[in-house]
Amino acid sequence: MQASEPAQKGHIVLLDRINGPEDLKNLSREELSQVAQELRQEIIQVCAESGGHLASSLGAVELITALHHVFDSPRDRILFDVGHQAYAHKILTGRRSRMQTIRKEGGLSGFTKVSESEHDGITVGHASTSLANALGMAFARDALGQNYNIAAVIGDGSLTGGMALAAINQIGYQQKRMLIILNDNEMSISENVGALNRYMRTLQIQRWFQDVEDAGKKALQAFSRPLAQMVSRAKDSARNFFDPASDNPFKAMNVRYVGPIDGHDLGQLVYVLSKLKDLDGPTMLHVVTKKGKGLEYAEKDPIKWHGAVPHDPKTGTAPASKGYSWSAAFGDAMIELAKEDPRLFVITPAMREGSGLVKYSQTHPHRYTDVGIAEDVAVTVGAGMALQGLKPVVAIYSTFLQRGFDQVLHDVAIENLPVIFAIDRGGMVGADGATHHGVFDLAYLRTIPNVSIALPKDTSELRGLFKAALKHGGPVAIRYPRGNTDQVPEGTWPEVQWGTWEWLNPSEEVVVLAGGKALEYARKAVADLPGVGLVNARFVKPLDEEMLEYIGRTARAIVTVEDHQKMGGFGSAVLEFLADRGLTPKVRVLGIPDQFYDHAEVSSIHAQAGIDSQAIRTVLAELGVDVPIEI
Amino acid sequence: MQASEPAQKGHIVLLDRINGPEDLKNLSREELSQVAQELRQEIIQVCAESGGHLASSLGAVELITALHHVFDSPRDRILFDVGHQAYAHKILTGRRSRMQTIRKEGGLSGFTKVSESEHDGITVGHASTSLANALGMAFARDALGQNYNIAAVIGDGSLTGGMALAAINQIGYQQKRMLIILNDNEMSISENVGALNRYMRTLQIQRWFQDVEDAGKKALQAFSRPLAQMVSRAKDSARNFFDPASDNPFKAMNVRYVGPIDGHDLGQLVYVLSKLKDLDGPTMLHVVTKKGKGLEYAEKDPIKWHGAVPHDPKTGTAPASKGYSWSAAFGDAMIELAKEDPRLFVITPAMREGSGLVKYSQTHPHRYTDVGIAEDVAVTVGAGMALQGLKPVVAIYSTFLQRGFDQVLHDVAIENLPVIFAIDRGGMVGADGATHHGVFDLAYLRTIPNVSIALPKDTSELRGLFKAALKHGGPVAIRYPRGNTDQVPEGTWPEVQWGTWEWLNPSEEVVVLAGGKALEYARKAVADLPGVGLVNARFVKPLDEEMLEYIGRTARAIVTVEDHQKMGGFGSAVLEFLADRGLTPKVRVLGIPDQFYDHAEVSSIHAQAGIDSQAIRTVLAELGVDVPIEI
Repeated sequence: MQASEPAQKGHIVLLDRINGPEDLKNLSREELSQVAQELRQEIIQVCAESGGHLASSLGAVELITALHHVFDSPRDRILFDVGHQAYAHKILTGRRSRMQTIRKEGGLSGFTKVSESEHDGITVGHASTSLANALGMAFARDALGQNYNIAAVIGDGSLTGGMALAAINQIGYQQKRMLIILNDNEMSISENVGALNRYMRTLQIQRWFQDVEDAGKKALQAFSRPLAQMVSRAKDSARNFFDPASDNPFKAMNVRYVGPIDGHDLGQLVYVLSKLKDLDGPTMLHVVTKKGKGLEYAEKDPIKWHGAVPHDPKTGTAPASKGYSWSAAFGDAMIELAKEDPRLFVITPAMREGSGLVKYSQTHPHRYTDVGIAEDVAVTVGAGMALQGLKPVVAIYSTFLQRGFDQVLHDVAIENLPVIFAIDRGGMVGADGATHHGVFDLAYLRTIPNVSIALPKDTSELRGLFKAALKHGGPVAIRYPRGNTDQVPEGTWPEVQWGTWEWLNPSEEVVVLAGGKALEYARKAVADLPGVGLVNARFVKPLDEEMLEYIGRTARAIVTVEDHQKMGGFGSAVLEFLADRGLTPKVRVLGIPDQFYDHAEVSSIHAQAGIDSQAIRTVLAELGVDVPIEI
Repeated sequence: MQASEPAQKGHIVLLDRINGPEDLKNLSREELSQVAQELRQEIIQVCAESGGHLASSLGAVELITALHHVFDSPRDRILFDVGHQAYAHKILTGRRSRMQTIRKEGGLSGFTKVSESEHDGITVGHASTSLANALGMAFARDALGQNYNIAAVIGDGSLTGGMALAAINQIGYQQKRMLIILNDNEMSISENVGALNRYMRTLQIQRWFQDVEDAGKKALQAFSRPLAQMVSRAKDSARNFFDPASDNPFKAMNVRYVGPIDGHDLGQLVYVLSKLKDLDGPTMLHVVTKKGKGLEYAEKDPIKWHGAVPHDPKTGTAPASKGYSWSAAFGDAMIELAKEDPRLFVITPAMREGSGLVKYSQTHPHRYTDVGIAEDVAVTVGAGMALQGLKPVVAIYSTFLQRGFDQVLHDVAIENLPVIFAIDRGGMVGADGATHHGVFDLAYLRTIPNVSIALPKDTSELRGLFKAALKHGGPVAIRYPRGNTDQVPEGTWPEVQWGTWEWLNPSEEVVVLAGGKALEYARKAVADLPGVGLVNARFVKPLDEEMLEYIGRTARAIVTVEDHQKMGGFGSAVLEFLADRGLTPKVRVLGIPDQFYDHAEVSSIHAQAGIDSQAIRTVLAELGVDVPIEI
């Protein structure tokens, strides 16, 4: 297949013979190209049937084929930053027959995962971690007197994360032998941002092999053909080897820089990788790829096809997404609130689409910014804005705010600055699995003084909470789940009094306290149990102390439910308060047990974790409530 | 004063007339030099009498004098990264009379603090935050149609933090008008590490004004003298203005780069700052300074004089530090354990001295690394090491591990990797104040599955815990406080069974549970109360479930004590467990209330927070224990 042509449905011949990377070693260049073509075809098929990280995986097919041809995995360590581009890697490392299970319960992870395969160098899902991992591995290799190679594949998007830049700074300083492969497709999930990205655009692709390319047939011999004098120059003088543009930031950090080269030119990739892999010290190979490569509709709209839903592989048509998402509710609320309040400003760390901000970014382009995959920066940019009179809203996924924990505490909370955190994907997220579940936020935010935390019961309340948060004046986290909601608000802006809960069913003997997603389960669980009290515990902090004290004094038993770890979450807050007031009703805390959960349907995880309606009913029965048995 | 001569005790004349930065505006160059001399003298005096951040503040005297002469604070925003170099800034902005109170209860903060002065742009203490704050401020200024200047002073050490690098990437991209002043003294607290630091050493100081310097007397006129064509070139072509070395990483990130210039040449500083301050877009001015400048012993040993204790200002002699610190106990344990176990490897994020690792770094240089002020990198380097067979120990302060929270969760805990976190400065730290108290770690670590957390009661137990942790096989956090300990272990390695507590006084009616520093208070509190049970609750996770269940069933009341926030801490863990088992003894949780505490003696904060011996006795009395009244 010519890399520039769309993949055609063809016969799968070679992949059937490849059970592991060792089976790639003796293939000719033509055969490797055939493998790449078959990989692309399989990835397209898998994602069409099951959905998945289509566009980034298509872009990395030749690179991964070349890597497994040249490197010796698992002895050599191949790391994929974020790990969602690695479908070809999974197929080539013995997981081909399970590709249809990807991101499904019991199936393969959507990312690389150490416990899934010895060929997966790191367990990953968040960006920018590969280089620090690679540095640690290089220390280990050298300390233990071993001699394998380490290759880390990192996208240009991941380089907007400071952790990656800081790691390069130390890699260059330590001069550890490794290969950093910059997989440059000009994309994060959205278009990549940042000055480095702009800089990379000034670099011109090097044609290392014009002759070889033209000759075509001599390709395989070319693998061993010397351009050795160039490479030995590289060994001698790391800083003067190919100088495509001045002010190369990687060379400034004492990392040998090579490239950029065409990441879809398999012959070139194999040649260059084999020449670079044994060089001393750190080398960065800059590889230019196209997200969605080989699939017309994915190349045209790589943002849409970053995470594909099941679709027709020929046309790219998929059933229209139904329903109204929590993210859309947030984005729509921002559009309206920004009209009312000229000080509102929305910040995203590279999640414009996921956070529901596409429309907002168009209606209020001057009060919107994408700071790249740099959650720490996002939070502190918010702090700077708040210090100078804006009302920033940092739109962020729960799991990624973990990256800004210290910044929330140090830069925002100490001075009680009015930064609002719109925490999307709070609670279990499903198919993205253990790296992405947002089930720690209540614990890590609750322990920080001055931070308020609220969970809307529906999208109307979401609007009410944001409106109230803008008035509140200190840091506020408003947390809502992934996915769709039944309820579309019709321009309503319910008044929410700060720190108050809401009786949904004011029965007092046994009372269920729950907020957000957990409240949905609780509602269903007690729908036919009028004797059980139900409270919309929409504030996790501050608690509605008046109401809770009343319940603590009157109720025989309290059940708390949350889509969050039991350790340190909402239930703990309730227990702390009751202990503080010397109240000792029986309290049952329903939350996520102290373990990591792999990818699966959210409802399945919730059932396993024991926080769904059935689990609530079981606990109520244990507490002596007369719960009808369901048939 | 010649900047290169040591400060001489002289008459303070000018500082008496300076009540705020406006009083610097009309001073001549000679007068400004005199101000700098007087500032240096005052800083030396203050630190000799009271201790403080001596060396870094001495290095920034001319820079700060020039900044306040050229910029218009508080309208213009001047930000100091970390904020410990800003003593001259405090003196010049109306806080001179309170300098002797610095770092003392009720006195000035050792860092800049928004709530302390309108001249302090940011509240700070952790590194690398200034640039993201500056970017946020620039967004705010532009969104609100305002027109002030923003200048951020950041050290070369802080640039090893990825957050700063990621912020520069976005600043260059957004082209926001601001001045970044790189205060390059080649130092973190220790010698700075990283390739960028090496790169900076290749740059040669520019003598912008050889003529002016030589002429001397014409200095003031020189301020308005044009080198305007150079500056206008800078305006026109950001990327080609002064090119001291190729591969300038800041220019690659589209930030205009000027320098380096001599940071102790006041005339040059004033001239250059006044020329740069109104340029469009972002500019970095690289200023080379000397840590400890003007004080011979501080220049010679800037590491020792980073944080000065009270001393004789003439000789630099100070009373020898007495006692054995927890940090030393840790470092000594590492030296011995590394002899036994060739897989042990210690990582520090720029805290070799503070973490007690000077000796270790000398005895085991090949199993030691300093990754710079990059806690996220430190944690993930540990993950990479553990994946490849080492047993890494990440030595880190509690407050700084906040920066690596996501990495502990995502890179270490999900795969249950054997990374040990030696958490120093756990609990209240005293003089460094709200930005540095390590009182959140139990909450944010406890919520992460697979992580064990232990608090040694003394340095022998610290050794036993590290030894046990090396055998344990998963992530372990061992947390100990700042400061000295009475007990020096004599080569003992007590056996600690994982997850077990220890009865210190096996009385069962009312039982006090405490670990670490809080246990010291508890011991004193119950020393004369043989009827009160006392447990060394050395594991916060896992809890000693067997013992706690027994106590929960037998005790009338339980008192938990911790040097940590009440929200989400050890007491909450106890409450969660008891609720889970359906046990309802009265529990009183003693911990830090939900607020930030400023700098003060640790014992004073503990008394205010209600966790010291007296507070414990008060609670015991409330619980009906017969507590003798003290006289």
